[in-house]
Amino acid sequence: MTYLIRLTATDLRRLKIPEPWGYGRADQVRFGEIDALGHVNNVAYLGWLETLRVNYLTDYGVHDYGSDAPRPRIVVKQVTVEYHAEMGMGDYIACARTVEMRRTSFTQHYAVFADGALKATGSAVVVFLNRDGSKMPLPDALRTTLTQRDGTVQA
Amino acid sequence: MTYLIRLTATDLRRLKIPEPWGYGRADQVRFGEIDALGHVNNVAYLGWLETLRVNYLTDYGVHDYGSDAPRPRIVVKQVTVEYHAEMGMGDYIACARTVEMRRTSFTQHYAVFADGALKATGSAVVVFLNRDGSKMPLPDALRTTLTQRDGTVQA
Amino acid sequence: MTYLIRLTATDLRRLKIPEPWGYGRADQVRFGEIDALGHVNNVAYLGWLETLRVNYLTDYGVHDYGSDAPRPRIVVKQVTVEYHAEMGMGDYIACARTVEMRRTSFTQHYAVFADGALKATGSAVVVFLNRDGSKMPLPDALRTTLTQRDGTVQA
Amino acid sequence: MTYLIRLTATDLRRLKIPEPWGYGRADQVRFGEIDALGHVNNVAYLGWLETLRVNYLTDYGVHDYGSDAPRPRIVVKQVTVEYHAEMGMGDYIACARTVEMRRTSFTQHYAVFADGALKATGSAVVVFLNRDGSKMPLPDALRTTLTQRDGTVQA
Repeated sequence: MTYLIRLTATDLRRLKIPEPWGYGRADQVRFGEIDALGHVNNVAYLGWLETLRVNYLTDYGVHDYGSDAPRPRIVVKQVTVEYHAEMGMGDYIACARTVEMRRTSFTQHYAVFADGALKATGSAVVVFLNRDGSKMPLPDALRTTLTQRDGTVQA
Repeated sequence: MTYLIRLTATDLRRLKIPEPWGYGRADQVRFGEIDALGHVNNVAYLGWLETLRVNYLTDYGVHDYGSDAPRPRIVVKQVTVEYHAEMGMGDYIACARTVEMRRTSFTQHYAVFADGALKATGSAVVVFLNRDGSKMPLPDALRTTLTQRDGTVQA
Repeated sequence: MTYLIRLTATDLRRLKIPEPWGYGRADQVRFGEIDALGHVNNVAYLGWLETLRVNYLTDYGVHDYGSDAPRPRIVVKQVTVEYHAEMGMGDYIACARTVEMRRTSFTQHYAVFADGALKATGSAVVVFLNRDGSKMPLPDALRTTLTQRDGTVQA
Repeated sequence: MTYLIRLTATDLRRLKIPEPWGYGRADQVRFGEIDALGHVNNVAYLGWLETLRVNYLTDYGVHDYGSDAPRPRIVVKQVTVEYHAEMGMGDYIACARTVEMRRTSFTQHYAVFADGALKATGSAVVVFLNRDGSKMPLPDALRTTLTQRDGTVQA
């Protein structure tokens, strides 16, 4: 079932999600995410983007650079969300892509679609840390994956 | 995509979920639902069961008894959850069935499965109210649906 | 500030919360806890009771039986909530007491008050485990504290 | 009890929160807000800032411009959060101030303090709408309040 919730570029095109989005997650608004105004609560989107980001990092192999490599501690330093239109109950698709990478961090963009329309966009800055809290350079394997899959540019 | 998240008896048997479960919802544990102990937070299950219940009520036609019928206000009077085993990240399947109906209320049972094992069970008492807060008898059409689909007994 | 949020028997009597409640927590309903029906979402109460329970366990010294004692892993096996009346925005007071103890577990009762009325009641069964998952007898010091502070009975 | 959770400039100075913060809310991290990494989940901060913003708007009289004035529909168009340091269990203080107002919207800044240190900052763009969805100019009474209490500048 997992592959149905995790969407590829092919899935997204079929669902009318435009380029450049190439990684997504489909889900259903939960009853408790609707607030007193009858729309999806502003905070709920952030939870969706977090779950999307965790899936993305797993699927892009971020935890998987050989048993001899130190595993990074992955920390979000900044998030933004812009709310374009209100949402009610129903399904939505959240998309992520990494647009830019630096030595020890990268920036992701997000979009949320429902009813064939763009409902929200967002971004996050993600930093790699060593266990001692010092910054860890992004592994070369991840740089290659990001370049190939997302067209991520080096800043 | 909706039908993949809403599971029928046939879907559930294929997924090794035993009788008598005949209605379910598949989902993925969200990152924020894992707590400080590394397991799914106790409260998160309740949100899952709520979303499942809302889907169930919609799919069993509870909002759909003809335009001349008054729409009930559906209120949960009681919930219980028993935690059988801890859960980590991954997919789960939550199941619901209505086991007993009374004049103005019914009792549902729930089960949560993950990794092929039963992780939690629960129940809820659901009451139908008129707009003025007085109790509304369950519509006959709903009684028929519950009897046919869930084998719900009249208490 | 903590003592203002954590309420003693004296605080509770002043706030018109009746006996036998002797431990409470005051808080404010959060905007995101109001659901599409304009009332506090059913699931939100469970989060309140969880935070109350964590405070209670800390304040009753459950983590504090000398450095040579093994620290228990505290697991909730069952929760129930009964919803007596709907709640809107505003302040509330959640109360906890331990009513019964057994060899390796105890049962707590909960109540939520707002606007001078009882809004919800609940219960939880809390189990003590050793690190290997086997059951741990409740420490004698905890039994004494529960008996003295809550009048907890031995089942 | 409310006044203890809602903090004035005087309260904040006493709590060592520096100028220019003049409005705050004290609260306790909830158990369920701690994530698998043992720190406050990134999303939880957004819920804190939302509750703070709702309190702020009420306390600054935004819902209270005379019975003949149309009540605005208040919509958040954008949020940002920067995470400066990780947080564990304990108390925190969240502060808000409105830094800039335009014809139909204003920008707020936020800060979260715990253990005497700045843990997160953030911002939101808040828009006033009429019931028909068109933009509503900020009421003059609100402009005066913001200027006097927060030193908000006109952009």
